[in-house]
Amino acid sequence: MPFIRNAWYAAGWSREIGRKLVARTLLNEPVVMFRTESGQAVALADRCAHRFAPLSRGQLKGDTLECGYHGLCYDATGACVLNPHGDHSVPRAARVKSYKLAERDGIVWIWMGDPASADEGRIRQFPQFGSPAFASVEGYLPVKANYQLISDNLLDLTHGQYLHPMFTNPAGPATFEPSSDPDPDTVWARFMRRSQYPNKYFQFLGFPADKLGDHRNCMRWNAPAVMLLDVGMTDVGRPESEGISIPTAHLLTPETETTTHYFWAMSRDFKQSDEALSKQLLEIGVNIFNNEDKPMIEAQQVAIGNTDDLLSLKPVLLATDSPSVRARRIVLRLLREEQPSMQVA
Amino acid sequence: MPFIRNAWYAAGWSREIGRKLVARTLLNEPVVMFRTESGQAVALADRCAHRFAPLSRGQLKGDTLECGYHGLCYDATGACVLNPHGDHSVPRAARVKSYKLAERDGIVWIWMGDPASADEGRIRQFPQFGSPAFASVEGYLPVKANYQLISDNLLDLTHGQYLHPMFTNPAGPATFEPSSDPDPDTVWARFMRRSQYPNKYFQFLGFPADKLGDHRNCMRWNAPAVMLLDVGMTDVGRPESEGISIPTAHLLTPETETTTHYFWAMSRDFKQSDEALSKQLLEIGVNIFNNEDKPMIEAQQVAIGNTDDLLSLKPVLLATDSPSVRARRIVLRLLREEQPSMQVA
Amino acid sequence: MPFIRNAWYAAGWSREIGRKLVARTLLNEPVVMFRTESGQAVALADRCAHRFAPLSRGQLKGDTLECGYHGLCYDATGACVLNPHGDHSVPRAARVKSYKLAERDGIVWIWMGDPASADEGRIRQFPQFGSPAFASVEGYLPVKANYQLISDNLLDLTHGQYLHPMFTNPAGPATFEPSSDPDPDTVWARFMRRSQYPNKYFQFLGFPADKLGDHRNCMRWNAPAVMLLDVGMTDVGRPESEGISIPTAHLLTPETETTTHYFWAMSRDFKQSDEALSKQLLEIGVNIFNNEDKPMIEAQQVAIGNTDDLLSLKPVLLATDSPSVRARRIVLRLLREEQPSMQVA
Repeated sequence: MPFIRNAWYAAGWSREIGRKLVARTLLNEPVVMFRTESGQAVALADRCAHRFAPLSRGQLKGDTLECGYHGLCYDATGACVLNPHGDHSVPRAARVKSYKLAERDGIVWIWMGDPASADEGRIRQFPQFGSPAFASVEGYLPVKANYQLISDNLLDLTHGQYLHPMFTNPAGPATFEPSSDPDPDTVWARFMRRSQYPNKYFQFLGFPADKLGDHRNCMRWNAPAVMLLDVGMTDVGRPESEGISIPTAHLLTPETETTTHYFWAMSRDFKQSDEALSKQLLEIGVNIFNNEDKPMIEAQQVAIGNTDDLLSLKPVLLATDSPSVRARRIVLRLLREEQPSMQVA
Repeated sequence: MPFIRNAWYAAGWSREIGRKLVARTLLNEPVVMFRTESGQAVALADRCAHRFAPLSRGQLKGDTLECGYHGLCYDATGACVLNPHGDHSVPRAARVKSYKLAERDGIVWIWMGDPASADEGRIRQFPQFGSPAFASVEGYLPVKANYQLISDNLLDLTHGQYLHPMFTNPAGPATFEPSSDPDPDTVWARFMRRSQYPNKYFQFLGFPADKLGDHRNCMRWNAPAVMLLDVGMTDVGRPESEGISIPTAHLLTPETETTTHYFWAMSRDFKQSDEALSKQLLEIGVNIFNNEDKPMIEAQQVAIGNTDDLLSLKPVLLATDSPSVRARRIVLRLLREEQPSMQVA
Repeated sequence: MPFIRNAWYAAGWSREIGRKLVARTLLNEPVVMFRTESGQAVALADRCAHRFAPLSRGQLKGDTLECGYHGLCYDATGACVLNPHGDHSVPRAARVKSYKLAERDGIVWIWMGDPASADEGRIRQFPQFGSPAFASVEGYLPVKANYQLISDNLLDLTHGQYLHPMFTNPAGPATFEPSSDPDPDTVWARFMRRSQYPNKYFQFLGFPADKLGDHRNCMRWNAPAVMLLDVGMTDVGRPESEGISIPTAHLLTPETETTTHYFWAMSRDFKQSDEALSKQLLEIGVNIFNNEDKPMIEAQQVAIGNTDDLLSLKPVLLATDSPSVRARRIVLRLLREEQPSMQVA
């Protein structure tokens, strides 16, 4: 299955991109990223036009990137601006592709499709990252699975009961509540636990084990795989505004058909300056995503083989699968719209 | 080449299968095995019907196996008996394949073909494993080679002279004696050393280096690759019943076309309670099979590439190859009988 | 792309080949090499005719090579001369391919093509290796790249400025000088630095940093990939005969389409008996080839994928690429001559 190209994907955290070259394969294309001296983030094809050496093996010279093999230099638009050899003439074809980037909320977004249709208004917002009301921890993990297997995981949070000991609840898995959104490209997956004993995670956050509470996990998905999880906890029956809020970003960017860049960030609106808590939350996130979700999703990819189309294998579907099935159908529709001539199964 | 499916294959040693889930790929199919609380061995497809997560990542709850991803529970027949979500309705299609098992002589046998034709009377017997007259040591090794390359190895024991220093004999390799069996699906390969100085192995077993003896190695093969090696040693010219007997089982189960599960067990009818000797014999077996046979067989697989049909490469054949060639032809005949429409080279 | 077969390839250094079996895959064929008791180098197909076990897992018995699996013995012509089993009859087909070898200048050359056209007069000469006027150090490295990517590297030495800190020169990369040769199968790539401050390499060799010199790097290429680099340094404007000379052999032999055996040897006509210098020069060579060239060339291979035809990807070409493009065209012409019926892109 091809990738949606006309979309904004997370290429990295803003703090990752600086004067050190960052090489990352995105949607099967090798990309090199850096910042100009004035701080502008740049993304170029990571393949010199001359001999196809990775430009990420070269070095920045001011705002130009010098190939580490034979010294051709490219500017931030991808144009070769220096051939250091002979009469220094630069062949007209000596240029590499440059990609549109946009920085918002500490995220570097990349547009891999038709530059003419790159509309920054379509970038999803994560205002918690810039807000003093929130403190955030963030992580990255490479996953050996198609990105849609990870969206599936995130759109069915009942798995917390089975996969994540910290989220196991004596009363059973969270309850899935269907919900819809006026935007046809947005999917919500709402999982509620009302009047349940809090799980280990909330005990860790200071909620007493013998007290009941209302716990919500509301996942918002946007194509191709930009997700925001709204986590909250209140006393029983109290409005959300009284409780704590832990908005968590899950940004999935395909590397190849069977590997994915998984960026996540967990914010909180309490104890914002408690750095020991930040450290513990980071450890919890790393443990859950790297040690519990990732092995299961990768085992799933192995089980289904090379296919990137789970539904073609006719899985048994439960009501809790409706958000992930809807998300997969939106991806198919967007692919057909983008590539009308392409056969999408 | 496909695998013979209507046959009993060794899935594991009985002692391996318990309340801990065992995952093993057999004939290209992922299988999970466990025992019910009453001790019944169970084998199910290791792939949840819901999202294809390996069930071996889940856990046993009584006699049901709970998927570790979203909690669907399967009974020993492979039927989903619990959907823990929503209205708890279980989709009709929610079931995984279950495989017929039979336990005999400490071996768990699995039937991967048409369940209707699973005839336990066809299971080969290894009575030495249950008999007080014998003590046994057993091992398992994964081999990166097609199972028939391992049968070939075992059906031409002249290799002992070259591959196994412990079996090298100053008088040269063992003598191959053609023999036949009334059963058209049984192949015998008999290798005799009469009046030879004993080799290091028999010296290890206590036979004096300066004494002559009769040494027999008689391999019995049954399709697809269930083998029993009758090893014995007597004084020159004496009947077998006077000597020692070391019956050894070699049970080969394909994992994939180019990888095999190799189960072996070496029994003896002397010094049955000598545990130091058992330990030494285990070490000898592990050394010979893992360090001497396995590298050669794997190198052979590399040399012939991906093919699983050695004979198609036109090897030069010697008289000593007749048992392995006969075994390969029986496999082809059984494949054609089982899958008449299939083109078998 | 197929390999040129009717050519002499370096199979190894003479000192590598002795009474210990050497296994090496050349042009996709497994080869085993050894010396007879009288010192003759021998190369045979490394695959027993019987069961395709690698003969390199066997052992030399005098001038015959005994297979380590079932004991068939082959002489230096590849004929099976002993079947140790049964009536000892040797099947007529029991023979393995033998390859013509020739030793010159400390190099074992192998002919992988039609034996009738193996003309030793076509072997390129490296007289420095046998000459008392020179001292040499030599190395070998396996490279995960098509051999032509390595020739490209060696035929455009401007890369020294960017890839090799030791060869970086404040005045910029070396100047490429076109040159030709009366032999249509020989390519020269000449790189000169006139009146430049010497680089770190020459400072290491004792040239004062504040003195100008003339530095030449003249690469001679012969199909398929036998190369000699004539390196020299003189005072400004002085004849070559007054300076030092560092002839360096670069012998590339394909292992597979995407892996190559890279043999190199660096000779010098000064301080021939300075063993500490020899040791330092060896370290420099290993560092440059293994740690600087190899990673870049292997990254290039990854970037271009499985193709072995760089030019089909339409790289931007500079004047400095003309030697490597010419070499690639000669390879194509020779392939077409050798295999007229073959479609070569």
